[in-house]
Amino acid sequence: MACQLPPRAVIREVGLRDGLQSIATVMPTDRKRAWIAAAFDAGVREIEVGSFVRPRLLPQLADTAELVAYAKTLPGLFVSVLVPNLKGAQRALAAGADLLLVPLSASRAHSLANLRKTPDEVVAEVARMRAARDASGAKTLIEGGVGTAFGCTLQGRVEPDEVLRLVQALLDAGADRVSLADTVGFADPQSVATLFERARRIAGDRLWCAHFHDTRGLALANVYAALQVGIARFDASLGGIGGCPHAPGASGNVATEDLAFMLAAMDIDTGIDLTRLLALRKRLSTWLPGETLHGALARAGLPATLATAV
Amino acid sequence: MACQLPPRAVIREVGLRDGLQSIATVMPTDRKRAWIAAAFDAGVREIEVGSFVRPRLLPQLADTAELVAYAKTLPGLFVSVLVPNLKGAQRALAAGADLLLVPLSASRAHSLANLRKTPDEVVAEVARMRAARDASGAKTLIEGGVGTAFGCTLQGRVEPDEVLRLVQALLDAGADRVSLADTVGFADPQSVATLFERARRIAGDRLWCAHFHDTRGLALANVYAALQVGIARFDASLGGIGGCPHAPGASGNVATEDLAFMLAAMDIDTGIDLTRLLALRKRLSTWLPGETLHGALARAGLPATLATAV
Repeated sequence: MACQLPPRAVIREVGLRDGLQSIATVMPTDRKRAWIAAAFDAGVREIEVGSFVRPRLLPQLADTAELVAYAKTLPGLFVSVLVPNLKGAQRALAAGADLLLVPLSASRAHSLANLRKTPDEVVAEVARMRAARDASGAKTLIEGGVGTAFGCTLQGRVEPDEVLRLVQALLDAGADRVSLADTVGFADPQSVATLFERARRIAGDRLWCAHFHDTRGLALANVYAALQVGIARFDASLGGIGGCPHAPGASGNVATEDLAFMLAAMDIDTGIDLTRLLALRKRLSTWLPGETLHGALARAGLPATLATAV
Repeated sequence: MACQLPPRAVIREVGLRDGLQSIATVMPTDRKRAWIAAAFDAGVREIEVGSFVRPRLLPQLADTAELVAYAKTLPGLFVSVLVPNLKGAQRALAAGADLLLVPLSASRAHSLANLRKTPDEVVAEVARMRAARDASGAKTLIEGGVGTAFGCTLQGRVEPDEVLRLVQALLDAGADRVSLADTVGFADPQSVATLFERARRIAGDRLWCAHFHDTRGLALANVYAALQVGIARFDASLGGIGGCPHAPGASGNVATEDLAFMLAAMDIDTGIDLTRLLALRKRLSTWLPGETLHGALARAGLPATLATAV
């Protein structure tokens, strides 16, 4: 039987962070502001505007504090940033972000290669962030995002038990929210259903978000599987920008517009106006000449059955 | 909870028919034979090799009788053809096809435009095919395929009740099998789950196949939804060839290799060797220069977790 799906879902736009960080072009701050404004205008109400890492490492995201300040002027916009460590968290708290996302890789090999820390060292850092947040009096939420939760290009298999141990450890360390990410496009709908359901048993409503890459075309099927176990918040990137350094030509995060379309087709309310979102995607393609945008909806257009409804 | 999925599924390769019919290039018969042989070698056991329509209308498929004869020499290969009318069915019976698929469009507007018949006139034609089949003594199965089952570019909405009425009418007219097709990429996972489940209540095990186009990127999500209601046979087209004349650049049927990958990732046995299938796709791209092939797996490659398993 058709499953009961959540009546509403939230799409968190991560193109400004996950997308732009893997694109060499540095998008000017004004353009990022225009992107944020147009996404807001299209009904997007959660945006990950950037990352507080050392600007030398990611010059593309060096303007994150300015973007947080701008995004916070838009009424009702929930503003997230990614932070890799305590120092980044302190900058996020000072900037006034609504949520700081701390990436943790369940693959030990990936964690050491990317973050130069073991997963448990990241957990320990989250505890320090929580202490800093509490001391600051800020209302900023802390989200621990468990990446490579479905496998890893370096290590191969990642044990679900280890993923769930880290979910529990993050909560114990003081994370307000946890999420699971298929960083490299290894998840399938069945593994998504199983792992998210187990994670929900541990985290309850603190299980916050699902982050799927469309590397092998399964992102929307994975979203559908996650919806069926009650997940109602998804990261997505306009035009599917981001890619995967290990798979040339492969797409990155699920495309925001395709995800918004699928949810709309299933009468799941996201608050997003698809026509405005597609117009923004068209602007984005002119802002990123030479970059391949992904996603099927922009090529095919809205179907007659839905175009009248939005 | 993760749903119980079928342990096995069949992929019916329809690239030689649904794919090639919308490509202007006429593929030489020898090459089609090589495609059939290589697909068989990769483990594909059902192939729609062509269509018995007037050669003047579709010169690309004029060699269908030769291909049926060749395909029948491969042990265990189940050979399907598409036929639009009684005359085509008689040719299919004479050629010795295992199954003849009769397309019917649930959208009256689409039916009149494409087949120059109302849906009920197609049902009446199926009754004549059944009589011809029975009189011939052939074991060829007759499948009624209800297209535009989820909406239509011409007519917009197609009522599920009308789709189900036609399913029942096809069975009453003597169709051995029925299937549902999202001809134009309007289906979503929830509508798939609902409609296929209702169709199963009418047709039981005679509900044979699901045919999804990936026009808006939802084909694999739709497959997952259909699997959950017990559907275990899917049409697919190597490299997603076919396209949609109403949506330039849009892909056609779900790509065989992406579908086979998703099923393999969920431990659903298709008998298909993904490495061999990807090698065939590479040959196909050289056979169709200038045609865009679709699908994510070919760009990204097999994941480490699965590459070792196949």
